[in-house]
Amino acid sequence: MTTPDQGYVCHPWELRWRGLDVTQLERTESTFALSNGHIGMRGTLEEGEPRGLPGTYLNGFYEEHPLPYAEGAYGYPESGQTVVNVTDGKIIRVLVQDEPLDVRYGETATHERVLDFRSGTLRRTTEWHSPSGRRVRIHTERLVSFTQRAVAAIRYEIEPLDDDVQFVIQSDLLANEPIEPETGDPRVAVALEAPLVAEFASSKDYRAALVHRTARSGLRMAAAMDHEIDAPDSLETTIEAEEDLARLTAAVDVPRGGCLAVTKFLGYGWSSQRSAPALRAQVEAALAGAVQTGWQGLLAEQQGFLDDFWASADVEIDGDPELQQALRFGLFHVLQAGARGESRAIPGKGLTGPGYDGHAFWDTETFVLQALTYALPGSARDALGWRHATLDKARARARQLGLRGAAFPWRSINGAECSAYWPAGTAAFHVGAAIADAVTRYLNASDDIEFERQYGVELLVETARLWLSLGHHEATGEFRIDGVTGPDEYSAVSDNNVYTNLMAQQNLRSAADACDRQPDIAAAFGVDGTETSAWRTAADVMVIPYDERLGVHPQADEFTRYAEWSFADTPADHYPLMLNYPYFDLYRKQVVKQADLVLAMHLRGDAFSDEQKARNFDYYEARTVRDSSLSAGTQAVLAAEVGHLRLAYDYLAEAAFIDLHDLHHNVRNGLHMGSLASAWIAVVAGFGGMRNRGGELRFSPRLPPGLDRIAFRMCFRHAHLLVEVREAEATYRLLDGGSLDIYHFGDVVTVGEKDGVTAPIPPAPSLPRPSQPAGRAPIRREPERRRRDRAAGERERDGAVQETRKAPQA
Amino acid sequence: MTTPDQGYVCHPWELRWRGLDVTQLERTESTFALSNGHIGMRGTLEEGEPRGLPGTYLNGFYEEHPLPYAEGAYGYPESGQTVVNVTDGKIIRVLVQDEPLDVRYGETATHERVLDFRSGTLRRTTEWHSPSGRRVRIHTERLVSFTQRAVAAIRYEIEPLDDDVQFVIQSDLLANEPIEPETGDPRVAVALEAPLVAEFASSKDYRAALVHRTARSGLRMAAAMDHEIDAPDSLETTIEAEEDLARLTAAVDVPRGGCLAVTKFLGYGWSSQRSAPALRAQVEAALAGAVQTGWQGLLAEQQGFLDDFWASADVEIDGDPELQQALRFGLFHVLQAGARGESRAIPGKGLTGPGYDGHAFWDTETFVLQALTYALPGSARDALGWRHATLDKARARARQLGLRGAAFPWRSINGAECSAYWPAGTAAFHVGAAIADAVTRYLNASDDIEFERQYGVELLVETARLWLSLGHHEATGEFRIDGVTGPDEYSAVSDNNVYTNLMAQQNLRSAADACDRQPDIAAAFGVDGTETSAWRTAADVMVIPYDERLGVHPQADEFTRYAEWSFADTPADHYPLMLNYPYFDLYRKQVVKQADLVLAMHLRGDAFSDEQKARNFDYYEARTVRDSSLSAGTQAVLAAEVGHLRLAYDYLAEAAFIDLHDLHHNVRNGLHMGSLASAWIAVVAGFGGMRNRGGELRFSPRLPPGLDRIAFRMCFRHAHLLVEVREAEATYRLLDGGSLDIYHFGDVVTVGEKDGVTAPIPPAPSLPRPSQPAGRAPIRREPERRRRDRAAGERERDGAVQETRKAPQA
Repeated sequence: MTTPDQGYVCHPWELRWRGLDVTQLERTESTFALSNGHIGMRGTLEEGEPRGLPGTYLNGFYEEHPLPYAEGAYGYPESGQTVVNVTDGKIIRVLVQDEPLDVRYGETATHERVLDFRSGTLRRTTEWHSPSGRRVRIHTERLVSFTQRAVAAIRYEIEPLDDDVQFVIQSDLLANEPIEPETGDPRVAVALEAPLVAEFASSKDYRAALVHRTARSGLRMAAAMDHEIDAPDSLETTIEAEEDLARLTAAVDVPRGGCLAVTKFLGYGWSSQRSAPALRAQVEAALAGAVQTGWQGLLAEQQGFLDDFWASADVEIDGDPELQQALRFGLFHVLQAGARGESRAIPGKGLTGPGYDGHAFWDTETFVLQALTYALPGSARDALGWRHATLDKARARARQLGLRGAAFPWRSINGAECSAYWPAGTAAFHVGAAIADAVTRYLNASDDIEFERQYGVELLVETARLWLSLGHHEATGEFRIDGVTGPDEYSAVSDNNVYTNLMAQQNLRSAADACDRQPDIAAAFGVDGTETSAWRTAADVMVIPYDERLGVHPQADEFTRYAEWSFADTPADHYPLMLNYPYFDLYRKQVVKQADLVLAMHLRGDAFSDEQKARNFDYYEARTVRDSSLSAGTQAVLAAEVGHLRLAYDYLAEAAFIDLHDLHHNVRNGLHMGSLASAWIAVVAGFGGMRNRGGELRFSPRLPPGLDRIAFRMCFRHAHLLVEVREAEATYRLLDGGSLDIYHFGDVVTVGEKDGVTAPIPPAPSLPRPSQPAGRAPIRREPERRRRDRAAGERERDGAVQETRKAPQA
Repeated sequence: MTTPDQGYVCHPWELRWRGLDVTQLERTESTFALSNGHIGMRGTLEEGEPRGLPGTYLNGFYEEHPLPYAEGAYGYPESGQTVVNVTDGKIIRVLVQDEPLDVRYGETATHERVLDFRSGTLRRTTEWHSPSGRRVRIHTERLVSFTQRAVAAIRYEIEPLDDDVQFVIQSDLLANEPIEPETGDPRVAVALEAPLVAEFASSKDYRAALVHRTARSGLRMAAAMDHEIDAPDSLETTIEAEEDLARLTAAVDVPRGGCLAVTKFLGYGWSSQRSAPALRAQVEAALAGAVQTGWQGLLAEQQGFLDDFWASADVEIDGDPELQQALRFGLFHVLQAGARGESRAIPGKGLTGPGYDGHAFWDTETFVLQALTYALPGSARDALGWRHATLDKARARARQLGLRGAAFPWRSINGAECSAYWPAGTAAFHVGAAIADAVTRYLNASDDIEFERQYGVELLVETARLWLSLGHHEATGEFRIDGVTGPDEYSAVSDNNVYTNLMAQQNLRSAADACDRQPDIAAAFGVDGTETSAWRTAADVMVIPYDERLGVHPQADEFTRYAEWSFADTPADHYPLMLNYPYFDLYRKQVVKQADLVLAMHLRGDAFSDEQKARNFDYYEARTVRDSSLSAGTQAVLAAEVGHLRLAYDYLAEAAFIDLHDLHHNVRNGLHMGSLASAWIAVVAGFGGMRNRGGELRFSPRLPPGLDRIAFRMCFRHAHLLVEVREAEATYRLLDGGSLDIYHFGDVVTVGEKDGVTAPIPPAPSLPRPSQPAGRAPIRREPERRRRDRAAGERERDGAVQETRKAPQA
């Protein structure tokens, strides 16, 4: 993985890959992807090939396809949506004299790629020897602009290392790039084989534009390119455009010591409304802006944006450089996923790959927005704005399901439900609570009254209405929510899922509170006192099952009475279980795919005593297999809270390394944004112990053994807070003036700017490490210092062991 | 429905239809279908057109198609199976002078069709006036032979009513008849568009044969025809055969008063093993036998078979002629479905239509075999032989699901699971208990030791093993069966479904008992004392949930705590509910599609007290919507047992008229064999109160108000018993010697041949009629005498009412 001449190289501010391994391209195309939340470009080589899975995505741009059912039923969605690989503008092909530059041929003497978290660019240096022995060096850098939303740019430099060489550059816009379909459904494959229908093509000078639309979903997109070429005088160029291809060709003789440098500016846009001429004009205008800013200007803007970001959101881990890199890598990608989405969804994979069909799920609100709320609050607001924009679809879906309020989709690109398996889709109504929770969290953290009035109240009201119609008061008065699915995907259609009921309880109360705060808005949505008090009543009598015999909360009614999964009989290669066991068997047994009750203990920690948390955590540790990437981060948070600091550290590492170590063997399809965000959560809510209920910001920080220091920065109500955690003390400091009351282990501390406030950390309890299912314990991770200390300790103990062993022989 | 000049006509031994209504052809093609359980022919007109849905079926002959899943999962079946419309031999086209005989043109002066339950033939008489005014009379009769399994035959007679006429007869074998597909899946449609691939065609003299195979399932079929023609001397014939068509053409001048009579003999066969020449030989041999027997011989054999059948299985209802007709109609079709299946399944629709893709379900064992066990025991044995033949597939399926024993398919033609929606398919493991129950019932009723040793023990052992691996002992020791689906399809994946647990309990005990009886066989299947005592222990501690607060059994854990369905808000046109409400909503509420707990009270009546039965019946009456045809018959049984005799009669009528009155609006796709059989059950187990546990045959007969007499015959351990029920007494008589101990209201009665034994019937309790969901009460049905009596009573009461009303004015 970090062999000296091949693979990732550790660096605090960069993701660096050394060496060329064509079989690893798919993985690194995801990890090296660039995105601003609107445009996404996978980290393919500029020459176009070799490549794993090319991909250029525009957030929200999808094609529809029929969803097939061998046995259909009422309310099943008829259409699926799949993110489309749009016109590829990354391609710059090169002919070196008469040989195509293709690293599969000849020899690649050096090859290095760097994703720079501070410059926000992907750089690459390759020295290539052609089959006939010509040597050239290529240096490229590219960016998807955070400051100019519709713009991406590539700088391509190539120089001969020996003799004079003729270079022919072909810079393309290529639509309908052939990709092998991953689906087994021929109709889906057909829909995605060549998803773009050409509508317009133009070219002139160094500029070209292509406009396409999708056949079924009726969306239109445009891509345009312009170029600046820095080359010797012999330069000859032509430009041409046909339906699915626009190409600038530049031929030039470059002397030894000379260099050909091409800057390619790209503009992208899409719309469901605008005409082809309007869309063409839109991308050409974006392009003109970019050209005017210029390559250096774009670089400078990008750097400035990221300087601001890291100043208020950086996370530092002193004592584990590789984890430091992974955490910044994760936060950088979370930023890329959300920065400029602007009322579009943040998909589960961001814009880094076609996984999950490009759909957004509940984990965006639960994990990604949890990080963004404190790292880049405006992007969390924007993502909730997307949910607000889809309210009409969610209300219609609720009506279709016989419910009031809004039923948000389990998976979607445009807001319409695309889940074809309702027990793990539509029945997972907790997505509504996740949205409400994200609204409440954002309001707690931002005090953004305008957002509350414009979006927040309506989202809270409509989600609360859903719960009231979904549950019912039984004869005893208790409010039950039957037949729904919680976060754990190895259970489904259960009664009184504790997570769901607690989140619904909070949702109902938050909605009532918001209506009390904004009575005029509430009235506009028809909310009256009868309705809010019905919400409060339901919340107050919400069923929260508890198993008195075992002294733990069952995940849902009856759960703790189910058969145990036989982990001893489950071979290691039978994970993830859902690929090797039927749902029916998983559902009826005590096996947990991902944190469910444990997530409830994080997000609704107020509903559990410390003793319950400790017992529940142990109980579910023994039954949770983490076949989902949405588990380790939450387990880290609760492990840290309960006092299992080393275990928490292992889980933090699992969440953070999910994609760099390809722990789920599917990074080729894109990064796991939820897991990357949950690594941030594991640091801030786990080791920082950060909790934010109402206006209160609480910390209970604890350093895992072996680290020297953890520090993190976060935004909270216009303030920027720096928290530094050391073994025995924590320091809180505001970075930009003012003062803020926070809680440190339950005590109020007023934090100002200067040197900050330092407070002692009480010692953690010493607890036996809980056990996980056989073979499913997280990989033990130890910071460098601890590894060193332990090695020394083991040497000592080894001596003792040997002595003991000698005794019987004496 | 029984208008004088159009529609069904009441007759005790016939289904008779008068008049021509082209829009009704689809309905009557199903009700007039002929079958012997091996060959099925829908009741299309001989001329081929007009037609609704032509269909000729061979039991077990199917085509495969891929089952599509938008979201697949482990263990989902990949291939579906669909019954194929095979080569159509029913067609005899006629040219009358120069006009095709097509009843859509010209005028049909008279048209009558008769399905004769005693002759086992379908007769038809049509007088047709051609567009140019030529008048002809057609008389046809056809049969699918009960005695010659591979044979069908048609007698076609046509006579001119005015002048001499030239007739041209074209008698066809037609393969790949075009039918509109009903599926939404293009791949299924393609697979079934022209399912037969031609392999061989021959013709000579009056004989022809076609051999085809299916493209995917690799099954081969052959059809052959031969003819006898009785015609004037001018007859000219030709015969020819091409890939998908063989045709005998006969042209003849028939003088006024003369007649052209064609007898068409048909032979059918299929095989997954035999070659085309072997299969051709097989059907030609069958044909030679039929020709040698001759038309009159076939008629005589058919009549003889049916004489025997009715002598031991007839059901008589004195006082309700239409119901009498419907009951014989139903029993005749149940006979047709099962008579000569011989180790093939009995599909849900028999061989009367393409509904349910031609699949067999659990209702065959639960309802159809319940009737056949006592009406034609050998056919029940044969149908269980089919299950036995599929044991290897069921064992492999159990392994795939991580279970021991055998997991029989929810729906199948060849024994492999074809259900594409596991919560209502694979999870409905009670199919195994239904098979075990049918085995036990057949053994109780037949004492067939050979069957027990050859099939019974193995079926019981493998189904018992499934239950033991599917359930588990929880910490308290109780044996739970979690996450399965009971009969009610508006619930799914529940814990401790009472029906399932009780049937599993019986299955476990029956298996242990059978192993004790046949220790050598048990040992051959590896059963030892440890295993049988594990079965008995699990059965003894089986969880049977009971709601103490309400004093009723919940259908499954938690059921009685679920929200009530709002029947008041459910419009009448929103039934069946599953077409208008999502599964998730149905599953989590107290709404019942079909008898579930009530079916448990029938099949496991020993597990409930009389008081529990009465309370449970009332409770579930109020929540059962009968969107399934598999409900009314069972509700009739329990209504009768509890004492609601009028309600029981209403339900009996609903079960019996399901297809004649097209109550589910889908009779075009075939008859509901389960419902037709359950009408028999409603009479015998309902009003007869017949129960058969172990060797004991019990009766508690009660006559519904308004009938004069119910009588039924049944086979029991080589005896043929006649039971006659009158208002105050019942008479039991053996029809063929010997003597038999039965129970009459709990008292042993020894029945011999002569005049029988007569015993008094205690008066029924007088109970308030339970209520059903709004609008879902069964149609009230009153026997003729009762209608008459009531009308008289109402006149009296009306007088009284008027008097009372007058009083205030006085």
